[in-house]
Amino acid sequence: MAVEVQKGRAASVPRDARLAAGAALIDGEVVPIAEARIPITDTGFARSDLTYDVVAVWGGAFFRLDDHLARFERGCQRLRLDPGLDKQQIAAALADLVRRTGLRESYVDIICTRGVPAPGSRDPRTFRNRFYAYAIPYVWLLKWDERDTGMDAVIPQSVRRIPPASVDPTVKNFHWGDLTRGLYEAYDRGGRYPVLLDADGNITEGAGYNVFALVDGELLTPDAGALEGITRLTVMELARAHGIPVRETKIDEATFRRGSELFSSTTAGGVMAITSLDGQPIGDGTAGPVTRRLRDLYWEAHSDPRYSTPIDYGN
Amino acid sequence: MAVEVQKGRAASVPRDARLAAGAALIDGEVVPIAEARIPITDTGFARSDLTYDVVAVWGGAFFRLDDHLARFERGCQRLRLDPGLDKQQIAAALADLVRRTGLRESYVDIICTRGVPAPGSRDPRTFRNRFYAYAIPYVWLLKWDERDTGMDAVIPQSVRRIPPASVDPTVKNFHWGDLTRGLYEAYDRGGRYPVLLDADGNITEGAGYNVFALVDGELLTPDAGALEGITRLTVMELARAHGIPVRETKIDEATFRRGSELFSSTTAGGVMAITSLDGQPIGDGTAGPVTRRLRDLYWEAHSDPRYSTPIDYGN
Repeated sequence: MAVEVQKGRAASVPRDARLAAGAALIDGEVVPIAEARIPITDTGFARSDLTYDVVAVWGGAFFRLDDHLARFERGCQRLRLDPGLDKQQIAAALADLVRRTGLRESYVDIICTRGVPAPGSRDPRTFRNRFYAYAIPYVWLLKWDERDTGMDAVIPQSVRRIPPASVDPTVKNFHWGDLTRGLYEAYDRGGRYPVLLDADGNITEGAGYNVFALVDGELLTPDAGALEGITRLTVMELARAHGIPVRETKIDEATFRRGSELFSSTTAGGVMAITSLDGQPIGDGTAGPVTRRLRDLYWEAHSDPRYSTPIDYGN
Repeated sequence: MAVEVQKGRAASVPRDARLAAGAALIDGEVVPIAEARIPITDTGFARSDLTYDVVAVWGGAFFRLDDHLARFERGCQRLRLDPGLDKQQIAAALADLVRRTGLRESYVDIICTRGVPAPGSRDPRTFRNRFYAYAIPYVWLLKWDERDTGMDAVIPQSVRRIPPASVDPTVKNFHWGDLTRGLYEAYDRGGRYPVLLDADGNITEGAGYNVFALVDGELLTPDAGALEGITRLTVMELARAHGIPVRETKIDEATFRRGSELFSSTTAGGVMAITSLDGQPIGDGTAGPVTRRLRDLYWEAHSDPRYSTPIDYGN
């Protein structure tokens, strides 16, 4: 298996070597990621008026592509955005994009923005929406060789997660001001991974990841105020299929701190142990058994044909 | 004088006619606005991690340039962003940019973003921050010929302004998801100008404008949850200088609705009457006397040398 993967990698030199570091689809053209640019006047930038999604390619196949595309489509509908492509067309465009990079493990971002105003116009209903995509080498939120030493998490005191009454967190968005503030507070306090509270003091999510706590033998994850992550969903499905009780619920700070294991879930790294919180070790300070089990199950699920959409690299 | 201005205008064809519709300063180069692009991987886009400011040019001079640059610098400091230029350097760059467009009335945007991550990096402290600017023809949030018929405002019920505990509204930002939701609700309800409430039901601001209400002869404007607008500040200064009582305070929805006059303030249009709210006329449904007075004073202030920084167009 390892050898096969190696062979696959050797054969996967992209047709255009300039795309090997990543490529983007901009205005219908594929360009190297370092040259990929969007208009400064696109309200996707100037108003953060957009939705996006990220799907992983692992071992030359998309993981849960249909789920990501369905969420993206739902987000577009809620924001009244039209990417101009249906799910099948997006899937084909992404497969072509990844194929041209040659990447067997990739982080694939799709974005639909409101677009560029006509000169003098302020009415977003009149803008032509834009679809962008890019594929870069797979991103690890926590490096693989740190998987057992884990994430040093911090619960920021200086900032609260943007409430759903203001911005719907289930529509994936770039409103990261609160998460970035949390990130800086985490750094200032000697950690790297913020986990934000909402205004009521309940746990929400981190800067690009959902969170789980194993409390009294039951796996808990927030039921509101956070992205409905596909990795989060996968964890819940795998837990249920393997007899680990799991529940979506409010989790106050004290309950979260009581967790015998904590972990995060994200497309950018999968299931990742949180081994300390505000400098205090969780359990023995390394990835716990339930976390390891779910991590293993998560990676095994990548070879499940129900979840996997292989890419034809043509070689 | 009029002739001189005419002569000046006739002579002010930009050196590069391609810049006449607007120009941007990107990575140190001046380009036509239609070609101005930023990297798709800039976290200014991908995390809305930035601050910005907008300064107007009117009659060939910046209005309150120092105040805008001071606010921009303060925002950068709060977000730990370094535009790589001090205020004097930014002022010089902007004057050069506007001069090259030839625009005598311009909307000038300056932006500092966190920048592009090194491949695989997630630590914003390591990114090289980027400075962008662009100058386009002056933007009217409400067209000048609508100045007396005024703005048809709506108080959205489906969305609340992002709270300061999540994103600091006094650091000018592109987290407009709530404002855009408000804009769509306004359109759905037959208006065009949302005025958002906070979670406690107090008035905050609109989609790019502060608001004022004349209640029992006193001018009120929200004391929190909104941008500390330079036009708002100008209105308060002018009101005080001319004997109109003005106060920053909490304004609940009922109090706002009691206003005998309502108006908004923004760099993109100045003082603009709100003449209806949720379809109900305010006063007689046209711009009221205090609003007109302040509007006149606002435009007169543009010839006050304390506020004005003339641009040398070289002709």
